[in-house]
Amino acid sequence: MRDRVLRIFRHLAEPVDAIAIVNGVDPHIDRTFFYATGISGGLFEGCVALLRPEGTCQVLSSQLEADIAKSFESPVGVFSTKEERQDALRELLTDFRSIGINGREITYSGYQELQAACPEADLKDVSEAVVKARQVKDEAEVSSLRRSCRIAVEAFEELLPYLQVSRSESEVAAELVYLMQGKGASGPSFAPIVASGPNSALPHYATGERRLREGDFLLMDFGALYEGYASDVTRTVALGSADRKQRRIHEVVLDAQQAALDAMVPGVKGQDVYEVARNIIDSSEFKDRFTHGLGHTIGLAVHDGAAMRASDSLILEEGMVITVEPGIYLPGYGGVRIEDDVLLTAEGAEVLTPATRELLEV
Amino acid sequence: MRDRVLRIFRHLAEPVDAIAIVNGVDPHIDRTFFYATGISGGLFEGCVALLRPEGTCQVLSSQLEADIAKSFESPVGVFSTKEERQDALRELLTDFRSIGINGREITYSGYQELQAACPEADLKDVSEAVVKARQVKDEAEVSSLRRSCRIAVEAFEELLPYLQVSRSESEVAAELVYLMQGKGASGPSFAPIVASGPNSALPHYATGERRLREGDFLLMDFGALYEGYASDVTRTVALGSADRKQRRIHEVVLDAQQAALDAMVPGVKGQDVYEVARNIIDSSEFKDRFTHGLGHTIGLAVHDGAAMRASDSLILEEGMVITVEPGIYLPGYGGVRIEDDVLLTAEGAEVLTPATRELLEV
Repeated sequence: MRDRVLRIFRHLAEPVDAIAIVNGVDPHIDRTFFYATGISGGLFEGCVALLRPEGTCQVLSSQLEADIAKSFESPVGVFSTKEERQDALRELLTDFRSIGINGREITYSGYQELQAACPEADLKDVSEAVVKARQVKDEAEVSSLRRSCRIAVEAFEELLPYLQVSRSESEVAAELVYLMQGKGASGPSFAPIVASGPNSALPHYATGERRLREGDFLLMDFGALYEGYASDVTRTVALGSADRKQRRIHEVVLDAQQAALDAMVPGVKGQDVYEVARNIIDSSEFKDRFTHGLGHTIGLAVHDGAAMRASDSLILEEGMVITVEPGIYLPGYGGVRIEDDVLLTAEGAEVLTPATRELLEV
Repeated sequence: MRDRVLRIFRHLAEPVDAIAIVNGVDPHIDRTFFYATGISGGLFEGCVALLRPEGTCQVLSSQLEADIAKSFESPVGVFSTKEERQDALRELLTDFRSIGINGREITYSGYQELQAACPEADLKDVSEAVVKARQVKDEAEVSSLRRSCRIAVEAFEELLPYLQVSRSESEVAAELVYLMQGKGASGPSFAPIVASGPNSALPHYATGERRLREGDFLLMDFGALYEGYASDVTRTVALGSADRKQRRIHEVVLDAQQAALDAMVPGVKGQDVYEVARNIIDSSEFKDRFTHGLGHTIGLAVHDGAAMRASDSLILEEGMVITVEPGIYLPGYGGVRIEDDVLLTAEGAEVLTPATRELLEV
C-alpha cells in the first residue's frame, strides 16, 4: 500500500527514518497496521508494520498470522514467543536513528518494548501525521465505506416492521446485527445502542432488556463493518403516534443536522459546522441539551481520529468521511439523535446513508 | 468494588499512593475501569478511575457518560473538553508522589497526558498486579462467566441443524451471533471465526464467503459477552461423514485436551499443562502442527492477561477461568481445534462449556 505509506510520511512535521506501527494484545490493535499493509483479516496481536519513507512496508508477524501475512506482504520475520519478537525487533530496527510511533494507539508497554529493542533510537510520536493521512480516504476506502453505509441503511429499512411494542431493546439490537450480517457485514462496527423511552436520553446507553412501549422514543445507533470499514448511523423513531413535544424535538434536531450538512464544504472548520448545529439547538427551547460533539471521522475505526466539535481543529477536506449527528437529550424523558455518514466532495456533503430522516411512527 | 481495588494493591511489588486506570479512545478501553468501578455499560472514552490503597475508587467521567457513572460512583469530575480533562486530572492527582499505571492498556498518549498533569509524580507500571488481581475471579465474576459460557454452548447446540452444505461461513457466523443474542448476550465476545475446508488450517482466519462443502472440516471459534464477561469456545465438525484422517486428527486433539484438563489443578504451572498437550500432539504423526499456546485466562477481556504456553510463567490458582484449546493445523488441508472454558477449583478443572466434544458429523 505504497500510496498510503507515502501519504503518512508526507504529513510528518519532522522526518523520521522509519515508522513502527505496533499492535498490542486485543483490543489494542492499531488499525493503521491494516491501512498500511492492505491486510483485511486476522487479529495480528503483537505484530509490527515497519513503514519506510520510500513507501515500503515490512511486516513482523506472529506465527498465528504468518499465513495471512504471507498473502499480502512477505513477512520479514515470524515470532512465536516474546523473546523471538524482541530479537526480531532488534534486528529490524538496528539501522534507524529516529523511529516514528503512533502514540494514540501503541500501549505504554508496547512503547517500552520497542525502546528496549533500539535503545539508541529516538522514538517520536507521529500520531498526528497518521490521523491526517487516514482521514482523507482513497478510492478503495471510499468504496468499502459506501458499501458499509449501504448495508446499515438497508438493514434499518428491513428492521422497521420488527419494531413493535413489547420487543426488548436487546432483541432489536440482535435483529439489526443479523440483518447487517446477512447483507455482507463481517459484524457490527460497535455494539448497537438501542435505547427506548427515558434510556434514549443517555447518549452512550448500553442496550438492555427494557421492552418498547407505546409513546416511547426509540433511538438506534448502529453500523456495519465491511472489509474492515465502519459505518455509524442513528435514527430515532416514535412508537405509535408522536405527540407534539416529540415532533418538536425531532424537528429541531433535523433542522440542526440539515444546516450542518449545508455548511459542510472543503475548507470549512469542523468547529464552525459544530457551531451551526449547536446554535440552532441553543436558540430553541432545548438550549444546552446538545451535549456532545457534532461528528467524527470514520474509516477503519468508528472514531477515526478527528471530530467536529469546539475543541478540535479539524478543517474539512475533500475525501473525508465523517458523521453528522446532532442530538437533544432530556434526562428522565428521552432524546433524539439523527446521524448520517457523509463524504466530503468539492460540491459539499454527499450523504452515504440515505435512510429517511423524517420522524417515523412505527 | 472495594474488594477488587484492595486485591490489586495486595499484588503490588512496591507500594504506590494511587493507581490511575486511564481509558483512551475506543478500542483503547481498559476493562480494569469496569472491574474496579463495577460499571457494566457505557463506553467511557478518556475516563479515569483512581484507585486508592484503602479500597476507594473515584471516577473522572466524560460528560457523555456522567449519568451512567453517577449511578455507580459519584464522579469526582466531569469533563467535556481535553482542557477540562487535563485540569481535572491535575487536581485529582496533585497530592500523589507515586502513581501506578496499567502499562499494557494505557496508550503512550494517555501516559504522556497523565505525566503532564502531575509532572512531579513517579509513574510506575503496575500492570502485573492488575493482571494477577483480575485473573482470579470473585463470585460475581464467576456467575457472569458461567452464564456467558452457557449462552455460547446453548447457541452452538441450536446452531447444529443450520450447518448444511452450501451455507456460507458468514451466514453461519451471523446465525451464531443471533442465537447468542437471543439468549441474553449483549453481543459476541469477538467476531466469530467460522472457517471451512482448508480455511480451518488458519488459527486466526477471518470468516469469509466460502460455502460449506461435503467432506469439509468446519471450525467455529466464538463466544458471548454477558454483563461484560467473555466466553470463548471452539468446536470443529465434519460436513457429512468424517473420513479416517479427519477422525484421527480430531482424536489426537481431543486426547491432548483431555490430558491437559486432567493435569489442571491449583499449583501446577501453565507451561507444564501446555507441555502435556503438546507432547501428545508431537508424539503423533502431527508433530509440530500445534502452533499456538494452549489457553488464556478470560474475563472482562477475551485475552485477560495470562496464558498457558511455553513463554508464560502462569501458575494455576483456584478461581481462575481459562481456555483449554489445543489444535492441529495442516496447511492447505484443514485443521481442528477444540476449546473449552474451565474454572479452576480445589478439585481441578470444572468445564463451563459442556457441549459435546465428540466429532459431530452434520
